[in-house]
Amino acid sequence: MSVLVRDVGEQGVLERLQRFCRSDLVGDDAAVLPCPDWGNLLVVTTDVLVDGIHFSDRTTSPEDAGWRAAAANLSDLAAMGASPLGITVGLSLSGDVALDWVERLYQGLTDCLQQYHTPLVGGDVCRSPVISISITAFGQVLPEQTIRRAAARVGDAIVVTGFHGISRAGLELLLNPEFGNNLSAAEKMSSIGAHQRPKPRLDVLPLLWKILEAYSPFTIAGMDSSDGLADAVIQICRASGVGANLERSLIPLSPILTKLVATEQTWDWTLYGGEDFELVLCLPKAPAEVLVKQLGEGAAIIGNITTDQQVWLTDITNIDQDVALTLEKGFQHFTAAPTKPGEDKRD
Amino acid sequence: MSVLVRDVGEQGVLERLQRFCRSDLVGDDAAVLPCPDWGNLLVVTTDVLVDGIHFSDRTTSPEDAGWRAAAANLSDLAAMGASPLGITVGLSLSGDVALDWVERLYQGLTDCLQQYHTPLVGGDVCRSPVISISITAFGQVLPEQTIRRAAARVGDAIVVTGFHGISRAGLELLLNPEFGNNLSAAEKMSSIGAHQRPKPRLDVLPLLWKILEAYSPFTIAGMDSSDGLADAVIQICRASGVGANLERSLIPLSPILTKLVATEQTWDWTLYGGEDFELVLCLPKAPAEVLVKQLGEGAAIIGNITTDQQVWLTDITNIDQDVALTLEKGFQHFTAAPTKPGEDKRD
Repeated sequence: MSVLVRDVGEQGVLERLQRFCRSDLVGDDAAVLPCPDWGNLLVVTTDVLVDGIHFSDRTTSPEDAGWRAAAANLSDLAAMGASPLGITVGLSLSGDVALDWVERLYQGLTDCLQQYHTPLVGGDVCRSPVISISITAFGQVLPEQTIRRAAARVGDAIVVTGFHGISRAGLELLLNPEFGNNLSAAEKMSSIGAHQRPKPRLDVLPLLWKILEAYSPFTIAGMDSSDGLADAVIQICRASGVGANLERSLIPLSPILTKLVATEQTWDWTLYGGEDFELVLCLPKAPAEVLVKQLGEGAAIIGNITTDQQVWLTDITNIDQDVALTLEKGFQHFTAAPTKPGEDKRD
Repeated sequence: MSVLVRDVGEQGVLERLQRFCRSDLVGDDAAVLPCPDWGNLLVVTTDVLVDGIHFSDRTTSPEDAGWRAAAANLSDLAAMGASPLGITVGLSLSGDVALDWVERLYQGLTDCLQQYHTPLVGGDVCRSPVISISITAFGQVLPEQTIRRAAARVGDAIVVTGFHGISRAGLELLLNPEFGNNLSAAEKMSSIGAHQRPKPRLDVLPLLWKILEAYSPFTIAGMDSSDGLADAVIQICRASGVGANLERSLIPLSPILTKLVATEQTWDWTLYGGEDFELVLCLPKAPAEVLVKQLGEGAAIIGNITTDQQVWLTDITNIDQDVALTLEKGFQHFTAAPTKPGEDKRD
């Protein structure tokens, strides 16, 4: 019997395929490619979204599916410190898809791209029994401004650029509209908007460049929090061979979450909600403090990089026990009421 | 009733989606993008291949499917005059695909890439009910060396870089192995090889650059012949607002074809076979003659660009009538025995 894709999962397939890739080019949110006679590096990222798995008509309009696909890819560029140059779209469509649906998808996609001055430069359309959207985004970054997962150093401050868990709350409001009666209309709209129209944090980059110029040279490690805040910190630590302490009292909890759900759920969504598309950055403390001051509400230094091999969630007040965060278990092992899984699969 | 994708076809969908793209960036085999502070242009092309439509286990091993996917994209770069920088792959897989199949696909893909010193720089794998492969290739080209469809000028010589129709013959030999008993083993292998392992003509580019240097500046129009020789000439003429005369006595017919099939079929496969991945180039006559001398067997000047709005196939011997070539009718209107369509759909 041969081993099937389902036996090893997507991650298993990716691991087996690593040997075909240039090893110095993979392992980040995007690939980084030197181009002859150019001071910049070319940054390239590809995402495939499949109907029924990554989007569905129940919770996502075609405009929103398009916006989110563009936003996720621009966020991968932001996570590398790269300014977008353009994107291409490979679209697989079955014959019974309404042309109107396709145009609405592209409308949402280009609405997002326009916000970030990024052209759609081409693509391909082909027949398929299943709708899928394959997006490749490319951008440029100066070598010294490149953000990499593996660059975290012991002592670095860990910065989040905004609140986490709001997109997860927005999904819950879409699935269960009766939920959240204690929220104001503005709060409801804000969390649903965070889910439907996430904003890649490309606006953080110019702030970073100025701070890089002002301080003696330092490296920035980081990635986006599309798979959740805990996931981002763990991935950075694994890639860098370090650990981290995250301090509960330092992690900003969105007022929307604290109004909407109980404390345990608030922590669960904040750490494991996903799809917030904030940046999680590791840099020396002094420039980190300057950066946080320039960012809006929800940005904070939430902890620091350690020599430990674990990511600890500590509590300076000693009310809660210290917890080692893991990718596998999620937060369930200390969450009273496990989160009901939503329809959308994070990737 | 809303209009469906099947009502307008892939081409119709692409036309409707054009308005979302930067108009100065589309219309060629690949998009061309200026990058700040770089003397080169970035060239980007995307292809989506779907199981059962663009490849099938009956005629294509996974290694060959991988090779052809890579070759088609590298050929799109060659068609723009661009040197490859790297490719990314977005892979949709159903759970019941054998992992071995996926690894063999990647083996063929990277075998081809290695021949052309092109790294696989990353990608994405996701679940889907249908296997599909979405490839994005990146390359670089100096502005003055860029080859564009719309750049043909009246008086230009039309150059083919090699024989056409051999890939079509190879497909026929794969589908009907009893066919072609009068071919030598080497001839059979050569045409099957042309179908299974096509070679993108990146080797033509350094020759072109030298000729460009030696002659006073001129522009090169062109594209690859992946959809057939007639298609390439017609597409170039449409984009450039010109016509062309192709002269029968100048078009090299592969000895394999003339041995394998009757004259009409030889012409049909030569003009409409497709998937030969040669380059069809339009440039002034003097440099065209130098280029053809440096290229191998099968390369020739096959005609010239005219002010006419048609592409004529002429016969200097007056045995055959002049024929206006079209995309829509193919060659059938003057072919005695219409070609039996193969399994593989050209795209």
